This record gives sequence, C-alpha cells and structure tokens, in this order.
Amino acid sequence: MGTPADLAARITASALTTESRVSPYIDDWLAEKRNQPFESTRITLDQLSEPDGWHFAPDTGNLEHRSGRFFSVSGLHVQANHGHTREWWQPILVQRDIAILGIIAKEFDGVLHFLMQAKMEPGNLHMVQLSPTVQATSSNYTQVHRGRRARYVEYFTEPGMGRVLVDVLQSEQGAWFHLKRNRNVVVEVTGDVPVHEDFCWLTLGQIRELLKLPNVMNMDARTVLACLLSAGGGAPAGDGPEPGGLHTMTEILSWFTGRKGHHELSARLVPLDSVVGWRRDAGRILAEDGRHFSIVGVRVHARTREVTSWKQPLLAPHGLTLAGLVVRRIGGRLHALVRAEALPGYRDTIELGPTVRFAMDDHADTPADRRPEFLDYVLSAREGVRYDVVQSEEGGRFLHAETRYLVVEAGDDFPLPVPPDFAWIAFDQLLALQRHSYYLGVEARTLLLCLGNL
Amino acid sequence: MGTPADLAARITASALTTESRVSPYIDDWLAEKRNQPFESTRITLDQLSEPDGWHFAPDTGNLEHRSGRFFSVSGLHVQANHGHTREWWQPILVQRDIAILGIIAKEFDGVLHFLMQAKMEPGNLHMVQLSPTVQATSSNYTQVHRGRRARYVEYFTEPGMGRVLVDVLQSEQGAWFHLKRNRNVVVEVTGDVPVHEDFCWLTLGQIRELLKLPNVMNMDARTVLACLLSAGGGAPAGDGPEPGGLHTMTEILSWFTGRKGHHELSARLVPLDSVVGWRRDAGRILAEDGRHFSIVGVRVHARTREVTSWKQPLLAPHGLTLAGLVVRRIGGRLHALVRAEALPGYRDTIELGPTVRFAMDDHADTPADRRPEFLDYVLSAREGVRYDVVQSEEGGRFLHAETRYLVVEAGDDFPLPVPPDFAWIAFDQLLALQRHSYYLGVEARTLLLCLGNL
Repeated sequence: MGTPADLAARITASALTTESRVSPYIDDWLAEKRNQPFESTRITLDQLSEPDGWHFAPDTGNLEHRSGRFFSVSGLHVQANHGHTREWWQPILVQRDIAILGIIAKEFDGVLHFLMQAKMEPGNLHMVQLSPTVQATSSNYTQVHRGRRARYVEYFTEPGMGRVLVDVLQSEQGAWFHLKRNRNVVVEVTGDVPVHEDFCWLTLGQIRELLKLPNVMNMDARTVLACLLSAGGGAPAGDGPEPGGLHTMTEILSWFTGRKGHHELSARLVPLDSVVGWRRDAGRILAEDGRHFSIVGVRVHARTREVTSWKQPLLAPHGLTLAGLVVRRIGGRLHALVRAEALPGYRDTIELGPTVRFAMDDHADTPADRRPEFLDYVLSAREGVRYDVVQSEEGGRFLHAETRYLVVEAGDDFPLPVPPDFAWIAFDQLLALQRHSYYLGVEARTLLLCLGNL
Repeated sequence: MGTPADLAARITASALTTESRVSPYIDDWLAEKRNQPFESTRITLDQLSEPDGWHFAPDTGNLEHRSGRFFSVSGLHVQANHGHTREWWQPILVQRDIAILGIIAKEFDGVLHFLMQAKMEPGNLHMVQLSPTVQATSSNYTQVHRGRRARYVEYFTEPGMGRVLVDVLQSEQGAWFHLKRNRNVVVEVTGDVPVHEDFCWLTLGQIRELLKLPNVMNMDARTVLACLLSAGGGAPAGDGPEPGGLHTMTEILSWFTGRKGHHELSARLVPLDSVVGWRRDAGRILAEDGRHFSIVGVRVHARTREVTSWKQPLLAPHGLTLAGLVVRRIGGRLHALVRAEALPGYRDTIELGPTVRFAMDDHADTPADRRPEFLDYVLSAREGVRYDVVQSEEGGRFLHAETRYLVVEAGDDFPLPVPPDFAWIAFDQLLALQRHSYYLGVEARTLLLCLGNL
C-alpha cells in the first residue's frame, strides 16, 4: 500500500469501478443540487462598487476589495520576442495567496472513493459543478469574509488527519492570472468522515463517466485528479530504468530548458488605468477592438455558500476556447504532441500546453497563414477523435469560460518531425513531469486526465 | 552508455581518477594563469558613469547600461509574514536573460573529462578561478558588447554538437538577484575539441581535489557540476522503487508545498531612488546602518576577455557568509538537514538552503535568542567536520563575495524532530530534486557537490 506502484494499482482499480453502493444515484443527486435557488446576475461595475467592498483604487484604477484580500484586477504590460504581437497591455487577475484544492480519499469495499462537492460558483455554466472537497483561498479558511469556515478544510491544514497521496503547486491560466498557483492535494483517510448533503463519494470510474459530460467536473477537480494520476505513476526521473519514449527524459528536460531560453517575455504589472487598448465604462472593462474578454460584475445569492450573498467581478471570455491535443502511438506507446507555450502570467515564461490553444472567436478574422500550427488539422479531424467535450474553467473567477477539449489520435502517417516549440512526449513521461510544479499548464492537465479516460 | 545508471557509473569512474595524462600539471597551469596582468580597480560610482555606458536612469535612479543589456541595479520593496524583519527595501540586481553555464565533457582513456576555463572575473579573489567551458549571457553570445564571441558557445547554441547529459535552469542568490536563473548544461562530445590555452580537461577526481582549496572552482562551475551529479543518479520520482529515506518523496514534496503556502513574501521592484534605509553618495550605494552590502564600481583590464577593458558595478557583501549544513546517517543513509528558505528574489518564494545561512558580520550584534537555529551548533562543532572551505560567489556580479561552506556530520544523538522549516532529506533524494528547477538554492547545490566529495 505504501509505494507509488501500489497506489497506481489502487487508482486503476478505482477507475475500473463505475458503480458504487456508496453513491448509487449520482445523476439524481446532481440534478437536485442544480435545482436550487441560486442566482448570479450581471451588474455594472458601477453597481459593484461599495463603501466596504469592491472599488477602483484612486491612484491606479485597479479593481480591488477594500479588505485587500480575494483578488484584484490590475494592468499588465507585456513585451515578447516571438509571435504576431510583440507588445501589448491587458487587464489581469492578481491573487497572491495559495488556495487549497483538496480532495479527501477513502476506501469503501476496498476501492478508493473521492469526496466531491456540488459547489455553486457565480461564473459556472449550470451554476453547480462538482469540485474538490475543499476549494478555499486563505481568505476562506482564515475567515476574512466573516462567513463559515470552508467545510473539511482541517483535513488539509492540520497535521495527522490522513496520508498525503499528492501535494503539488500548479499554475492556472497564464493569459488571465498573474503568477497564480494553487495547492493540488489529495489526503487519504481511514476514519469516519461525516458527509454533508452537498458532498458525495465517487470512484474514479464514476468520475470518468462524468468527464464525458460537458460542464460537470469543474476545473479545480480536474487539475487535482490529474495530479493524483502522477502520484501513482509516471516515468522514474532518477536511476531507475528510463521508459522508452521517443525522447529520453534528459532530452525532454533539455528541450524545455532551451525553449525558456529562446522565448523572452517580460510582463510587468502596471496600473489598470494605464492599460493601452482597453477602456472602462459604467458597465465593464473591455478591449477597444471588442476581442479577448471583458471584466464584468455579478451579484450572487447562494444559501449553501460560506457567505450567502455577495457581489464580485469576473473575467468573461468572448467565446469558446479550443484546447486541441494530437496524440499518436510511437513504438506502441501513446505520445502527446505538446507545445511550449509562453504566457505572461507564468512564473517561468513557459509551460506545456496542448498542441493548439485558440480563441475560436478569432477564427473568422485570422487569415490562413496566421492560424496556429495544427489548428486546421484538429478542427478538420473526423476519424481518430478520442475526446471532444466542452468543460468550464474556474467559475469563481471566470464567467461562462468554456473550453472545447479535443483529443485527436493521429495515424502513423502523421509526421514525427515537428517545429521547435513542439515535442512528442509519452503519456507516462508527462505524468512524471506533472509530479512537479509548472511543467504542465492547466489545459494540458485536463487533457491528461481525459487521455487517461480513453 | 545510454541510461542514467550507466552515466552514474561513468561519473563515479571519473571521480575516482585523480590524475590524468591529459592535464598532468594543473597547479602550475593555474598558477601561470593567475600570474597575468589583470587589473580590477575600485572606482566611484561617479567615475562609473559614461555617455554610452553605465548611468543612473533619470526617472528611477536605477543603475543601468545604456544598451539596455547586461544587468541593472534596481530597488526592491519586500513584505513578509515571517522573520524578525517583516518589511524592508534593498537594492537588487536584475538580469532577465538566461546565461549559459556550459561544460563540454569528453572521454580520454575511457574516463570522462570536463573542459574547464581559467577565467578572470573582476570580483574574483585571486582574479582567476576555474569556470565552466562557457559562462556567457546572451549579451556575450549575441555580441552586444562588440567583443569576441565567447569561445565554445556553439556547442550549446547549435544542435547536434554532442549529447546533452544535463540541462536545467537553476536560480542564483535570492537575496541579491531578482528572479535570476541560468542554464546549467553539460554536453558530451566525441570528436576533436581544439583546446585554447586558457582551458584544460579535468577529471571529476581532479576537480574534487581542487574543491578542497579555497576560491579555485568558481560558483558557476560548482552549480553545473552539482547538476551533473543529478543526471547520473538520484531517487526515482515515479513508479520505480522509492528509496528508503526518513521521508518518502511524496512526503518531501508535500512539506515543500506546505512551506510555500506558509511563507507569504511579496517582493516588488521599485525605483532605486525610492529605497528606504539606503543612500547613494559619489562613491557607492550603502545601507544607512552600514550592514548587508554596498553597490560599488570597478575598472577592469583583462586582455584574455572578449572585451579587454571595461567598467561595471558590482555588489560587495560586507564580510563572510556562512553556509552550514548538518548531515547525519539515518538508517545507514546520509541525510542532510535542509531549510525551506524564503528569499525575495526567488521565483516561487522558497528554495532549499543549507541548515543555516548567516552573514558573519552580524554575529556580534545578534543576541543569542535571535540567532538562527543550529548556528551555534555548526560554529562550535569540533568533531564531525567533513568540509570547511571558503569558496567565492560569482565574480562577474559580486566583489569578493566569500562563503564558508561547512558540513558537519552529527552523531546518532542529534535529534530527528526538527522545526517546521527544516527537513531531513537523503542525499539521493536531493539529487533527484535537483534534476528540476528551483528546488535547491545555489548554496545547497555547492554543498551537495562537496558532500559528494566526502
């Protein structure tokens, strides 16, 4: 039970278990949770401002909470040495404290189950999605907002509550967040855990089924579960036998290092007031060309949350994002074609993204010679589509941010030589990398979880 | 020859070879290299300023080169939630581009040799120390300063010159550099390499001997060689058998993640002019209490460098730094007592430092109850001292920055329970972590290399 190999076997057993007497009626339960009087209503930014709540700081124009906690909307000035646009300004979400994205695991009938929460978030499609047991910033668990303490948080903040299976910081959207990272943690317990009505124990097999549906498993649940897969597997990074991917781990790490040297990207926080190409009106903050995203306000009523009523800003993307991954068997082993993606909010310039990530809204305006590599390939794929489901990004910060996660398995005729920013990396090599921070971006982690789902 | 285990055996064989017919007279050669007409002369900051060179930017007071390259001296405002001082300002060195610290490796008589350079740096003790084959910022290899291109740089910038043994970004001093990282890379070649007179091939055994001397192997050489040790060993991070350290790798990674959540440290670049508690006079920039370090200027003449004469600023620490590491055998395996050290220049708040890092200048002024944990223990150790040598930090940025690297092996009576910021980590677990960026700080990497030297 103690070694990673044992854990891998237990994860596989849970993934093969698609029914459980512990949670027999998930669909009904989820439908009931979604059928509650939650409200999230768009309001103007002017309506958002309150004497003791959100306001625009007079010296910078940054949108901040007067408590200094939660998050803020600042400006960012970016200069890059690659890409069609080499310099731009944009609003960006800033949140320095590390949130806990924590799942409690426990065996029932000898099979690992995971305690998932039906959680309302103001930006969620369908309002309620399944989240980790705990999804709490330190504002939550230190009770800055004077609400209830997040349920079960003590399993992750107090020692000796269980055995840690995985515990790693990972980034979130590097285009929308500045230096954001969260703690992805799973703790296995053996004792009784009282189950509140908004929570249920699910096997990985049940979760696999739910991942086939759009907008059920939220982003935080997906990234934690992806990291859990790494805890039970992945290539050894040391003196063990190296797996036989197309490239050795040393070659992959060297390629990753080289890409960081190649892409220079300087991103500097600046006052939101000084952001060029964007404007703020009474209602929202938006780009002068109407593209990318807006910063909007919402008013929320939700009796099941720590605080039952509040207002907050959200980042509202304009349309669907595509996250397309090409996979191919090479030497019998599944490889993914990942891209070294430079984003201004990353801590070290580059993380691994899908083969192609693209805002579909831009598609009509983008001439063929400026479309990202492999975009046309994944969009036109008919055979080999292994996964094609729309999932939501974090509903506590983004309004209806939907990503189409698309995995296309290419045949042996798909060329192995790829441009310098791309690399074929075997599935278990990706898992090994994901054991550490800041190799895989958040979309790649979702795709890895869904790949495990093939 | 292809696997990490094979590489580990070749590294061990090289470490056991303390004499080589390729470089029989190292001491004489080094003495000759040091006996050259190099000059590095302190000048005032006023003398440093030049119409097309260094100057104080009028709007910020930052000390910059007018080309925009090399590095700059900016201000930093730091706020922390731990430590005796919770808020401070300081000057800090800013350098965004990634330097190559590259060593060429090649077998002679079946034994790995490494091409080391006798390199003059203006801040070096003894002017000349042994450095990697290449130690070049992109300013060097893109020839911004209109000098010669750094010798051998093509082995690291052009594909197909050899086989990469290790290639990883690592941080440098988080108290003196803002977000600095360099590429630690070793490339093994099989073809002929013409050897310039300032270079020589050394076995790891010869390097081990030189590491027993003060101020011979420079910082850059030490960090690259430490990373090389990781390429040939270290605990598997995946599904291989986990080594039997006091803690599992999962526990160690969880502790590291937890420490990052615990220490909040916000560091923001500010104009050097606005730095509180420091002042600039005609000669230098220094703290009002005279502690920490100064920013000074030097004028250099060195005919062997790419540019033979120049002026530049340097950071001059006030006195010796202690980097003390306690090691202990636990279950027969050597463990190091490392500390999760929060420094303002780190990319993700925390890296692993020695058990104690301390500016010895502060010793007299620091009351017993404010001395760092384990300081008195390592300073008073008589038995068990396994390494005690003064080495220099980077002479291209620091003036006579000396660190006393001290390794003390504790007996079985040394307690295993340690305060929360400390952890016992086995030697091969540290090697496995060092395969990735930003786990081990620069002093820990030197100590790991010297530990391998026991």
